Amino acid sequence: MKRIYNFSAGPAVLPEEVLKTAAAEMLDYHDSGMSVMEMSHRSKVYQAIIDDAEKDLRELLGIPANYKVLFLQGGGTAQFAQVPMNLHKSGLSDYIQTGHWTKKAIEDAKRYGEVNIIASSEDKNFSYIPDLSHLKIDKKADYVYICDNNTIFGTKYKKYPETGDIPLVCDMSSCFLSEPVDVSKFGLIFAGAQKNVGPAGVTIVIIREDLLEREPVEATPTIFRYKIQADNGSMYNTPPTYGIYICGLVFKWLLNNGGLKAMEKRNIEKAKILYDYIDKSKFFKGTVEKASRSLMNVTFRTPSEELDAAFLEGAKKYGFTNLKGHRLVGGLRASIYNAMPIDGVKALVKYMGEFEKEHSK
Amino acid sequence: MKRIYNFSAGPAVLPEEVLKTAAAEMLDYHDSGMSVMEMSHRSKVYQAIIDDAEKDLRELLGIPANYKVLFLQGGGTAQFAQVPMNLHKSGLSDYIQTGHWTKKAIEDAKRYGEVNIIASSEDKNFSYIPDLSHLKIDKKADYVYICDNNTIFGTKYKKYPETGDIPLVCDMSSCFLSEPVDVSKFGLIFAGAQKNVGPAGVTIVIIREDLLEREPVEATPTIFRYKIQADNGSMYNTPPTYGIYICGLVFKWLLNNGGLKAMEKRNIEKAKILYDYIDKSKFFKGTVEKASRSLMNVTFRTPSEELDAAFLEGAKKYGFTNLKGHRLVGGLRASIYNAMPIDGVKALVKYMGEFEKEHSK
Repeated sequence: MKRIYNFSAGPAVLPEEVLKTAAAEMLDYHDSGMSVMEMSHRSKVYQAIIDDAEKDLRELLGIPANYKVLFLQGGGTAQFAQVPMNLHKSGLSDYIQTGHWTKKAIEDAKRYGEVNIIASSEDKNFSYIPDLSHLKIDKKADYVYICDNNTIFGTKYKKYPETGDIPLVCDMSSCFLSEPVDVSKFGLIFAGAQKNVGPAGVTIVIIREDLLEREPVEATPTIFRYKIQADNGSMYNTPPTYGIYICGLVFKWLLNNGGLKAMEKRNIEKAKILYDYIDKSKFFKGTVEKASRSLMNVTFRTPSEELDAAFLEGAKKYGFTNLKGHRLVGGLRASIYNAMPIDGVKALVKYMGEFEKEHSK
Repeated sequence: MKRIYNFSAGPAVLPEEVLKTAAAEMLDYHDSGMSVMEMSHRSKVYQAIIDDAEKDLRELLGIPANYKVLFLQGGGTAQFAQVPMNLHKSGLSDYIQTGHWTKKAIEDAKRYGEVNIIASSEDKNFSYIPDLSHLKIDKKADYVYICDNNTIFGTKYKKYPETGDIPLVCDMSSCFLSEPVDVSKFGLIFAGAQKNVGPAGVTIVIIREDLLEREPVEATPTIFRYKIQADNGSMYNTPPTYGIYICGLVFKWLLNNGGLKAMEKRNIEKAKILYDYIDKSKFFKGTVEKASRSLMNVTFRTPSEELDAAFLEGAKKYGFTNLKGHRLVGGLRASIYNAMPIDGVKALVKYMGEFEKEHSK
């Protein structure tokens, strides 16, 4: 069996132990005589799987009792519409624009109301997180919306905006479970699973209960109504049962490996190896402001597009994949989610050193 | 390893060969060094998986070139809204009501326009498919909507309504790929994967290209727009990559086992064993009209609720699961999708015989 270092931005590397368990249980889960894929979502054996997953997630994040956890479908893109459809009150919402995904979220929000962009880093191609000290949050705003970690650009909030009574909504897709989070600061957190959590096709939504009482806009499809999903334990319709099972295995892996504090420590350590190398290099350059750097997606470049291409070509022989930067930024990107071992990062930096030496001559 | 006979209505039994392949490839797909779950959906290796799945599905169903195949999320419940949102023209649509799922579809359709129920079997608790010879289809209708196989009630269309120029939309979730279908008779076919195709969380939509040119209602979320998904090869957002891979394995299994004609033959044979036994029994009774019987979901009952309960209890020692009827019908239900082996049906009928003998004394 071959395993490589996969630096994909998502879907992304998963813990090998999780995959081994999934393989071992594929035909017969815990002596049930069935694969988890084959189980009725209404069965006791499956109910225990989703209940366990929720319990473990609550423990990992310390989710307060007045928050519901939903396992939905459609990734962030579904949430771009579900959030404005469900949290609609005055019809006005405030967004901080920090990249491609907030732009997409704003596009959808405009279908259902008025959007104020209260801060943006578009002037410098989203290479930083805007200053949060003078935000003009509208008192009538239904919510304030941010994207915590910007996968494409490699930026991350180091603190969150103070929004007072206005609920803060956070797309946490690409840093979810990479560090502890004070959930009580948020009205709603959502995350597509395919970064730190599990396979694509599961979306986790954590929503404060009082927000479930808002009346969705009339056109909201039944499947998109948070309250209906909450009242039915994420089983109004058939949930993505197997994906939720894998998420549950990842939650157990996180708990067995010290939880989110240990993850954060390890993630800081991993990112530091890369950023330290980039900072002392005269060849490689980071693409974002140091104060806004992501721990999950490290974006950088060589002195030229030709050398970027040569770097990617050379990476193949080490079995490093998905190091190409997103077309909106160019250059290179190493995504180093929870499940990327520290040895993978060390091996990458070793290759960067060799490449720099060879091409700086 | 233990394997049981799982008569679940969905998620449901999958071919053992498919599960074995999935287990073997879990940590390293075709020497890629990655699980399919870990692959970027933008990678060549994953593109080949989804392309193959589409090619094999097109071959299985003989899908004409002027139809697009989409791999989406949200199951039938998402389609209940996506269909009326996207196929909207006059705002009027015609529905044939044959059970719980058409009722749900109608509820969502009413959010976006006017619904005519042009036929219904509600008068007899949906125990038959209505007569199709005198349907009053509105000439202005945007589409006519049917649910082909009614999982809960155990009914199935034996022929389809003639709708002329009005597109026929079909929820084929629980009989999809159980028999050959003339796709050209339909404007749109959709199916949740979790019956005959794969894990919950994948929805297959087959749509005639001209219908993609209709202007969706304004409130349609971006992720719900068929044209955007079609233009992006089902990858406008991250698709449920692993689920699609499993569907692809099932398509290959179907092709290797004679395709849909062979499946139909086998499914007729399996259903006949059960229905023949029920028809000659003085103890068990079918719950639907003979002419409307489903080949996938066989609904029946004993003379009393107590005996139904005793039957379910006794089934446990043979390792038969999920034989309880849906609460809207009561009694018993054996779902015998493609992947249910004929030996499973024979074993069930043997148990029915023993149970009848014991309790008819």
